Amino acid sequence: MTLKVSDIGEKELVRYIISRSKNITPDDTAITRFDSTNLISTCDMLIQSRHFPNRMSYFNMGFKSVTVNVSDLASMGANPLGFLLSIAIPKDLSLDSFKQIIDGVLNACDYYDIPLIGGDTNEASEIIISGTALGLCDKPLMKDTYEMGDVIALTGDIGLAALGFNLDVEDNIYVNRALKPLARIREGKILKDFATSATDITDGLASELYEIKKDDLGFMIYEELFEISDEYKQMSEDLGLNYLDLIFHVGEDFELLFTISKDNLEKLPIEYRVIGEVTDSDIVELTLENGFVEKIENKGYEHYVSE
Amino acid sequence: MTLKVSDIGEKELVRYIISRSKNITPDDTAITRFDSTNLISTCDMLIQSRHFPNRMSYFNMGFKSVTVNVSDLASMGANPLGFLLSIAIPKDLSLDSFKQIIDGVLNACDYYDIPLIGGDTNEASEIIISGTALGLCDKPLMKDTYEMGDVIALTGDIGLAALGFNLDVEDNIYVNRALKPLARIREGKILKDFATSATDITDGLASELYEIKKDDLGFMIYEELFEISDEYKQMSEDLGLNYLDLIFHVGEDFELLFTISKDNLEKLPIEYRVIGEVTDSDIVELTLENGFVEKIENKGYEHYVSE
Repeated sequence: MTLKVSDIGEKELVRYIISRSKNITPDDTAITRFDSTNLISTCDMLIQSRHFPNRMSYFNMGFKSVTVNVSDLASMGANPLGFLLSIAIPKDLSLDSFKQIIDGVLNACDYYDIPLIGGDTNEASEIIISGTALGLCDKPLMKDTYEMGDVIALTGDIGLAALGFNLDVEDNIYVNRALKPLARIREGKILKDFATSATDITDGLASELYEIKKDDLGFMIYEELFEISDEYKQMSEDLGLNYLDLIFHVGEDFELLFTISKDNLEKLPIEYRVIGEVTDSDIVELTLENGFVEKIENKGYEHYVSE
Repeated sequence: MTLKVSDIGEKELVRYIISRSKNITPDDTAITRFDSTNLISTCDMLIQSRHFPNRMSYFNMGFKSVTVNVSDLASMGANPLGFLLSIAIPKDLSLDSFKQIIDGVLNACDYYDIPLIGGDTNEASEIIISGTALGLCDKPLMKDTYEMGDVIALTGDIGLAALGFNLDVEDNIYVNRALKPLARIREGKILKDFATSATDITDGLASELYEIKKDDLGFMIYEELFEISDEYKQMSEDLGLNYLDLIFHVGEDFELLFTISKDNLEKLPIEYRVIGEVTDSDIVELTLENGFVEKIENKGYEHYVSE
């Protein structure tokens, strides 16, 4: 039987590429030493049928294509330098829709203070937006440079987008997060001087915890620290969904997951939510509200995997 | 009637984006001033059904995705700094085919001496490869900085790929050029110190001449200077194709089109073919082998335009 890419999954494919090239930084972005600083570069492709919910506006498609890329700059603590837009659209797309996408891109570039510096247009059977974000950073914030005893924290609440994707209403905090997430670029630049490591949560908290896990170290996460509202639990239950699944295994909130020493936490001049700590257990585990401890499963959104 | 993007064509869409952003360099790449030099960045997306001939191997798809991006660096005279690969593949693609694409990318990166520094993988219904090439250049070679009286030249013969796309044979110079074109990165770096302007030919010579044309200046191109072989003319005729159409209106050879003063031409340490001169006619015209002069039409490969 011929092996398909879906038989091994996206992470294995990425590992294959990295194993073949000695120049790839295995972190959120590429890092290229440059005079007295580092050029930070990252690219991310969004495909209409895979990444844009049906009711997402053209404006928000454009906006999100910048957000997903800027979010990787944020996780390094980089200053935005420029954005490149490669866009493919069907030829029967209305000119007005095209202009709305571009409006969304430019609005996001303004919001994140990253200039649109170049790009490329193409024809395709659906909308495909591939962005490249460039930034500068003297001391990039890597994702696995934490130590035993560090605190694990988030720049904001997660699981909002995950619930929002499943709601059939026009406008609430969950739907808004699903349709127009925002990258934490300001927070990333501050974390660079306080945190011991950082990454952005795209494929889900569990997936990112396993992504940053080092041999012999582990994480203990505490459910009670999330202060999950009764409303959130009820809405999840009404949809037949497990609220912990939504929080741990979906992602798309674009909050930053970071580690920090207890000393620095007190000085940190941004809002944050502590969710756990780095342990020497070699396990990624969760203390439930009821006191029981369970292992967190390593699953998240992954392309290619057969459903 | 609602206006579709196909009603206005790709070039108008690009003009719209440029008109909305004050930070885009209207040249082959973006240019970002950086300490004592310039960061050169460019991105190009290739879509299987649009850009890869049916018989193109997976290896050559990967190779071409690097070539199209490096070619833009070449046209600026830039030194390659790094390549980012954003690739989407169908989930039933064989793992072996995927590895061949990556082999092609890495082989091209070696060939052009540009390290693969990062990227992104995705799932799509067909193969989509979006590359970003980064480079450095102290004095970028712009595309419209020529003067009246400059000579117009090419780094090599063109029209080979155009004929190759139409041939049903395995292996000759035309088919090889169509399936594995090479970017002129070495020549670009040399031209930077000798030429007055340069651009790479992707959408066809005619299209590029109109792209670089300035008000009040024009170009006179001489058919005889191409030294088109009888073989080429005969093969075109056998296919029912006009050989001048193949040379002027197709592209995909990735040769550089450059202008240079007559004085500097003698000193130029690379192979080249002079094809004409910059005139004050305000017209893009061609002197045929039979002595007649005709206006060159502004048409080339353009996406979206209804056929």
